[in-house]
Amino acid sequence: MGMKCLAYILKDFNKPLVPEKIEIPELRQNEMLVKIKAAGVCGSDVHMWKGQDPRLKLPMILGHEGVGEIVEINGDLKTVEGESLSIGDAILWNRGISCGHCYYCAVLNEPSLCTDRKVYGINISRNEFPYLNGCYAEYIILREGTDIFKISKEADPAVLVAASCSGATTAHGFDMIRPDTSDIVLVQGPGPIGLFSVAFAKASGAKEIIVIGGSETRLNMCKEFGATVILNRSKLSIEERKNIIMKLTGNRGVDFAIEAVGYPEALREGLDLIRPAGTYVSIGFGQPMGTIEFDGYTDLVHKNIKIQGVWVSATRHTHQALNLILGNLNTFEKMITHRFKLNEVNEALRVMENKEAVKAVLIP
Amino acid sequence: MGMKCLAYILKDFNKPLVPEKIEIPELRQNEMLVKIKAAGVCGSDVHMWKGQDPRLKLPMILGHEGVGEIVEINGDLKTVEGESLSIGDAILWNRGISCGHCYYCAVLNEPSLCTDRKVYGINISRNEFPYLNGCYAEYIILREGTDIFKISKEADPAVLVAASCSGATTAHGFDMIRPDTSDIVLVQGPGPIGLFSVAFAKASGAKEIIVIGGSETRLNMCKEFGATVILNRSKLSIEERKNIIMKLTGNRGVDFAIEAVGYPEALREGLDLIRPAGTYVSIGFGQPMGTIEFDGYTDLVHKNIKIQGVWVSATRHTHQALNLILGNLNTFEKMITHRFKLNEVNEALRVMENKEAVKAVLIP
Amino acid sequence: MGMKCLAYILKDFNKPLVPEKIEIPELRQNEMLVKIKAAGVCGSDVHMWKGQDPRLKLPMILGHEGVGEIVEINGDLKTVEGESLSIGDAILWNRGISCGHCYYCAVLNEPSLCTDRKVYGINISRNEFPYLNGCYAEYIILREGTDIFKISKEADPAVLVAASCSGATTAHGFDMIRPDTSDIVLVQGPGPIGLFSVAFAKASGAKEIIVIGGSETRLNMCKEFGATVILNRSKLSIEERKNIIMKLTGNRGVDFAIEAVGYPEALREGLDLIRPAGTYVSIGFGQPMGTIEFDGYTDLVHKNIKIQGVWVSATRHTHQALNLILGNLNTFEKMITHRFKLNEVNEALRVMENKEAVKAVLIP
Amino acid sequence: MGMKCLAYILKDFNKPLVPEKIEIPELRQNEMLVKIKAAGVCGSDVHMWKGQDPRLKLPMILGHEGVGEIVEINGDLKTVEGESLSIGDAILWNRGISCGHCYYCAVLNEPSLCTDRKVYGINISRNEFPYLNGCYAEYIILREGTDIFKISKEADPAVLVAASCSGATTAHGFDMIRPDTSDIVLVQGPGPIGLFSVAFAKASGAKEIIVIGGSETRLNMCKEFGATVILNRSKLSIEERKNIIMKLTGNRGVDFAIEAVGYPEALREGLDLIRPAGTYVSIGFGQPMGTIEFDGYTDLVHKNIKIQGVWVSATRHTHQALNLILGNLNTFEKMITHRFKLNEVNEALRVMENKEAVKAVLIP
Repeated sequence: MGMKCLAYILKDFNKPLVPEKIEIPELRQNEMLVKIKAAGVCGSDVHMWKGQDPRLKLPMILGHEGVGEIVEINGDLKTVEGESLSIGDAILWNRGISCGHCYYCAVLNEPSLCTDRKVYGINISRNEFPYLNGCYAEYIILREGTDIFKISKEADPAVLVAASCSGATTAHGFDMIRPDTSDIVLVQGPGPIGLFSVAFAKASGAKEIIVIGGSETRLNMCKEFGATVILNRSKLSIEERKNIIMKLTGNRGVDFAIEAVGYPEALREGLDLIRPAGTYVSIGFGQPMGTIEFDGYTDLVHKNIKIQGVWVSATRHTHQALNLILGNLNTFEKMITHRFKLNEVNEALRVMENKEAVKAVLIP
Repeated sequence: MGMKCLAYILKDFNKPLVPEKIEIPELRQNEMLVKIKAAGVCGSDVHMWKGQDPRLKLPMILGHEGVGEIVEINGDLKTVEGESLSIGDAILWNRGISCGHCYYCAVLNEPSLCTDRKVYGINISRNEFPYLNGCYAEYIILREGTDIFKISKEADPAVLVAASCSGATTAHGFDMIRPDTSDIVLVQGPGPIGLFSVAFAKASGAKEIIVIGGSETRLNMCKEFGATVILNRSKLSIEERKNIIMKLTGNRGVDFAIEAVGYPEALREGLDLIRPAGTYVSIGFGQPMGTIEFDGYTDLVHKNIKIQGVWVSATRHTHQALNLILGNLNTFEKMITHRFKLNEVNEALRVMENKEAVKAVLIP
Repeated sequence: MGMKCLAYILKDFNKPLVPEKIEIPELRQNEMLVKIKAAGVCGSDVHMWKGQDPRLKLPMILGHEGVGEIVEINGDLKTVEGESLSIGDAILWNRGISCGHCYYCAVLNEPSLCTDRKVYGINISRNEFPYLNGCYAEYIILREGTDIFKISKEADPAVLVAASCSGATTAHGFDMIRPDTSDIVLVQGPGPIGLFSVAFAKASGAKEIIVIGGSETRLNMCKEFGATVILNRSKLSIEERKNIIMKLTGNRGVDFAIEAVGYPEALREGLDLIRPAGTYVSIGFGQPMGTIEFDGYTDLVHKNIKIQGVWVSATRHTHQALNLILGNLNTFEKMITHRFKLNEVNEALRVMENKEAVKAVLIP
Repeated sequence: MGMKCLAYILKDFNKPLVPEKIEIPELRQNEMLVKIKAAGVCGSDVHMWKGQDPRLKLPMILGHEGVGEIVEINGDLKTVEGESLSIGDAILWNRGISCGHCYYCAVLNEPSLCTDRKVYGINISRNEFPYLNGCYAEYIILREGTDIFKISKEADPAVLVAASCSGATTAHGFDMIRPDTSDIVLVQGPGPIGLFSVAFAKASGAKEIIVIGGSETRLNMCKEFGATVILNRSKLSIEERKNIIMKLTGNRGVDFAIEAVGYPEALREGLDLIRPAGTYVSIGFGQPMGTIEFDGYTDLVHKNIKIQGVWVSATRHTHQALNLILGNLNTFEKMITHRFKLNEVNEALRVMENKEAVKAVLIP
């Protein structure tokens, strides 16, 4: 084509992303060239930038959350809903492509765990053809097998973009095990996964949604998402938090808890707050963060609880997260606290790293 | 009645049980006097005898696993199947009585977790009317609300008796989560819970059943119950065990594991042997035995596994365990390695404590 | 006590209920005398009044939905939450008492299906001690084994009362199978079960909730409960309704449908509107209303659908329905279209029979 | 290659299949040429031959159940277990190829219902490149996306072949809903799906397995598969069958029933034999066979039952069926009552049509 595309490349860990003009190659069969309308900056991008994610292959165009507009299309492509795709369509896609034929995909129906899962902006290097393999760029090329959702052009792309990662991963957890109507639910952590957890708990009919967090601003945002009780751990000791929760739950503990923090201390606290026969869903650990002391008797057998770990997501979950946002656009808009131009990407990573932002989005 | 009943009483922890002649009181409405035909000696009896079980109320007639024959009945009583009960019937019963009306019973449909659960031989003292509240005796009085199963007089009571505790508790675990047909299942521990786990895994269509244990005799018994691979931990190092299991599972790990040991080391080993998105059911911890280092990322989130603790059981599970035994009488007969007279009860506790016996039964 | 209680008695089918002054007997152990604050008039009361419900035992004090205040209590009674009960407490209760020990209760954990279920106002005759066995009266005596919920005195009893029957039965259906987040749900029928279905579907995160009904007023009420699409069958033909639904669902059909009508035509229409691998929950049939032609290939096997019948409810479901109402008091207030004094009970039955009322409540 | 392959072609419905020598084309990328070792003759092949299956596209090489040996391979192909495939390997494959990206595949994780599912021998015509698209031939070409299982060369291919269709479809049903341990299970129909149902019910721990059928020989075969009670409908009236079953089930009805017949009368009988809150799985209808009268009250709501239709299968189910056979080779060998040479294919269809054979297999 001769056309060039500006992209920001992670070449060395902990160094600023570097702008580069990449020549846009010709599309292969069933590929699309997509102009990025919004690229989410995920907490895990910060970890990748620091070299903490073993999946990464340098050099990399980061950015695994994207919304865009089709500018070129080679083949008769359809959305997962069966709608034909054409130039000008606004789309969101599953950030990962599962192989469909490994043991996890074909036998276990768990495409999230596919052993050959390719993820834009995470494990497809900038050096791998067709090069435009991440969202921190003007364009991305979506390869064959990418699952696509058509979206309304009226919806703000920045608000939808989180459906592709934190939203979908949270959906994966709730898809495996949901709270019952009238459950008392605890959410640990008021970041993007925590906010999605509050929204999914509300959409599961939870009677009470308690959030533990350290930032009053974020906790108040949780209230706008549906939290009924917020507990600020910078103001309340761990004993005080436990007392409040036990009082609220007839001294049983919560029915259902979601760990959306990624710190061992939170996991340890959560285990102590769940009632016998309750459920604990752990989503927050994107990388190793240390261990806890775990007692097979006290924490597990005598309590008869269920603990579920949640790793990434599949197209089913992107669909669920996208619908959750579409049903609550005004609420989710609040999550996008920071918007940057593409050339401000290093600043965007910075505000995510120091937690100034709940969610930053690049609008190229 | 004036009739007296010989019972063995736990008066002081770690001291021999003491024989006592107790006057049999008149039955209240809906009570039955039952002649004990077999009383199982459970591993947990040893722990109670040592004072390790906080539920115990001294003095206690131990023995929570019983099969007997009705000798007197006051009321129009029925089995859970709706059959009328009368003198001479051979019966087995749920060792525990749930209240039916607490939050666990009525709202959660989890009668195993009833906060007011009464258990013969465990938390109803010898001093509580009608006194005959445990199975280490000639007779037991079954109070109102006890769930009864009629059994064939042809079946050996000693073989059926384990349905009421280790069998039912194992059934509880499999009732919450079962292996899929064609799963590769790991059972840790070849004691009674382990043997029931092997039998339930077979009755769930498991493709392979691997057992890890320390006694060649018990491991061979597991084979007779349906194990396809036995790994003797006194002969194979932890690395060798892992290598064998990884080879057998396409390097994924087992689909489903059951912890039936109660030692932290087993829990730690089990977590390392489960495949991503696999299931771990922990049953073995009857009392605190220490902790493990548990990593939220490596052990839980990144593996996307489910962990389920299992505490005691309810009538549903007694029913399942009883049917499992009845369908495999010849196999389960092998589990009863030791039979004692009632006055040999202290010897029976000894062979359970030092693991000479897989399962000892008192035949009064 | 000597005190008398006014009650309205069904003595002959299709004849007006007859007022009677019944002497209030002395309470037995664990019984409570409760002053009725609100008694719901259920659609099934009309069927009972007509003699269409085989469970009924004349003479009967009708009324199985009640909210009241404790005026006398004999025993140390507690709610299912474990709170102590005392005189003056406002309460709601499970209308049925399951035995806890039959095959359905003890083995299947399905107390709704208890073969010995006693239901106030339905199968406990006015002649059975302690006589005050229904809610169309100034007082009711709650017998031992009744599951109790304490409620706030601020909440309007008339709004809460439906939790005990139509709400609980709908909860039973959603407890067995729930819509997934982002499902398109169809509710057939805008009566009390339909309205509860809309509310539970919303509390399950449904993406769209379509209601088919014949009354514009009721359909508009459905919108206030969360319906997103209403289809008036007096204005749209069955083909038009199908076309609208197919267009809305990418020509697949709805993911999840609830039959809340009780007419064969609705069942037949519902089967045609569900997508392959969808779910159909049928709740509406309280008595035989005729049959449909059902094709094992077209309706069932080739579509790979799941169909679930729902019969009555248990304490778990009363709890879920009560919490649903408490979380949406302003919405559920709209359902109570008619309020009557106790002596207007025959008029209350009339407005329920001719469907003038969505829900009528007696306020004695 | 110049090599030719003998295949039998369905050119006109109800006319004998016609032999044809087809030139074997060059393999495309990721295709394999496989020498057929066994081709199952399925009951549905008879229906296709009669023109009763709308999916068929003439001319067609029938045969959707195959076991074979790789003779040529173009690409680096792997099994679903991740094993490399090479010339000489014995394999079995999923007869269908799901697209992986439609709503059913990607959002619902129901690849059985894929709207673009391609099935060898059913909907890929002999005229569609690469022509060798069915198993009634010396060779088949397996196209990209086919899910492959490596099998032992020792196992008899004729015995394994049923895993790919009747076995997998039955597995699909049991994968959606399984009997509980200790359930009493009814299987209607002693053909291949019925036999697989008996085997899966046994592998689910069923306490009793009752089979209703019309052929004493087949019913006896069911016993060898694990049936505990057989009811010959040519000797017992429908009332007698019901009486026997009610006596066996404490007058409740069976816990779980599987319809494996495909006739409306069976569906009607099954509905009358299931207990309240039981489960009915319907698999037998491969084409429309007429309707039943279905009563929403009596058959569904008042009984609170669950009914599940089962349509075809996916790779997960082929895996489950294959493992079931491998664990019971001696039993399943009995199912293969007739073996034919490839040129006897019309005779093979005849013995399936008139039910002389339980299962016929072509050994080319």
